[in-house]
Amino acid sequence: MSSTRDIDALIELMAKLPGLGPRSARRAVLHLIRKRSLLLTPLADVMQTVAATARECLNCGNVGTADVCDICTSEKRANGELCVVEDVADLWAMERAGVFKGRYHVLGGTLSALDAVGPEELRIPRLVDRVPGENITEVILALNATIDGQTTAHYIADQLDGQVKLTSLAQGVPIGGELDYLDDGTITAAMRARKAI
Amino acid sequence: MSSTRDIDALIELMAKLPGLGPRSARRAVLHLIRKRSLLLTPLADVMQTVAATARECLNCGNVGTADVCDICTSEKRANGELCVVEDVADLWAMERAGVFKGRYHVLGGTLSALDAVGPEELRIPRLVDRVPGENITEVILALNATIDGQTTAHYIADQLDGQVKLTSLAQGVPIGGELDYLDDGTITAAMRARKAI
Repeated sequence: MSSTRDIDALIELMAKLPGLGPRSARRAVLHLIRKRSLLLTPLADVMQTVAATARECLNCGNVGTADVCDICTSEKRANGELCVVEDVADLWAMERAGVFKGRYHVLGGTLSALDAVGPEELRIPRLVDRVPGENITEVILALNATIDGQTTAHYIADQLDGQVKLTSLAQGVPIGGELDYLDDGTITAAMRARKAI
Repeated sequence: MSSTRDIDALIELMAKLPGLGPRSARRAVLHLIRKRSLLLTPLADVMQTVAATARECLNCGNVGTADVCDICTSEKRANGELCVVEDVADLWAMERAGVFKGRYHVLGGTLSALDAVGPEELRIPRLVDRVPGENITEVILALNATIDGQTTAHYIADQLDGQVKLTSLAQGVPIGGELDYLDDGTITAAMRARKAI
């Protein structure tokens, strides 16, 4: 099957993507080959471009195609607010919500004794430098409500204690959420943080 | 966000793959960017190659990187048996099973009055030509056990009636299949085709 080696290699690589297994990778590759001009060629081209240009922002860890990302270079976003997230996906989610107008700091994970992830692996020293360096007045810890996420939030809070206003995202019932489907922890948090109407 | 336009374009194209939605496409692209040298660059390269070289075999409809695929050019596979399948994925499945040593004919779908798919859209005329042209002695109709698949099988059987031995895959209980989970049709077929031990 020498002449189909490339196709097999493509399937093998596609199967390494999260959410795709061998079977779905084969389906995807067949779909790509069928829609060569519409999908495969443009995808191959843009993939080449991204492979050549994509990099992590040296300042905040966001992904972009420049050494320093658009958000870090934009003066408009320099409003003294810094939102700390675990992952670039979280940054993208915040941007989609469009509610935050400040800058971000992507940790690139959470502290984890098990996986031997310490502050140095997480851009935390860089964060501690940025707070005075960029005249940050408020640091919003938007870390996931997991044990590791909260441990990391507490560690960062200790590091920045007294230097800056520290806040975290409100916890409660998600919009459209049904109590019946919510876990006890969320209901407890929502009840404790109840507000007057 | 001009400098991230390529990344957004990549996400948009990835989201068009079967089995990937916008969310999983974003996850996949972040994974690709993190593993740039290990995954993104090789994937982009092989995708370029496939986009440039992949084509349908002019003889059987299999996908490959030559005008006529390896199976059609291999003399070893010219044993007079021709296996008719709906789709290249079915051909690959047969090849993985490794039980069939003859050649294939990929229809590219099934006859469908609803979608106005006629014999001309399905490489059926080509099949009718191949039978005498390649001295085919047996045509195995390995079409899916769906209504459209069986309709197509009947149509092809009419076309080739008397020219060649026509067979179809046995129907019955799949290996490892539990009766409790099988549909009535399969159990009926398996019972009717029961064999002496």
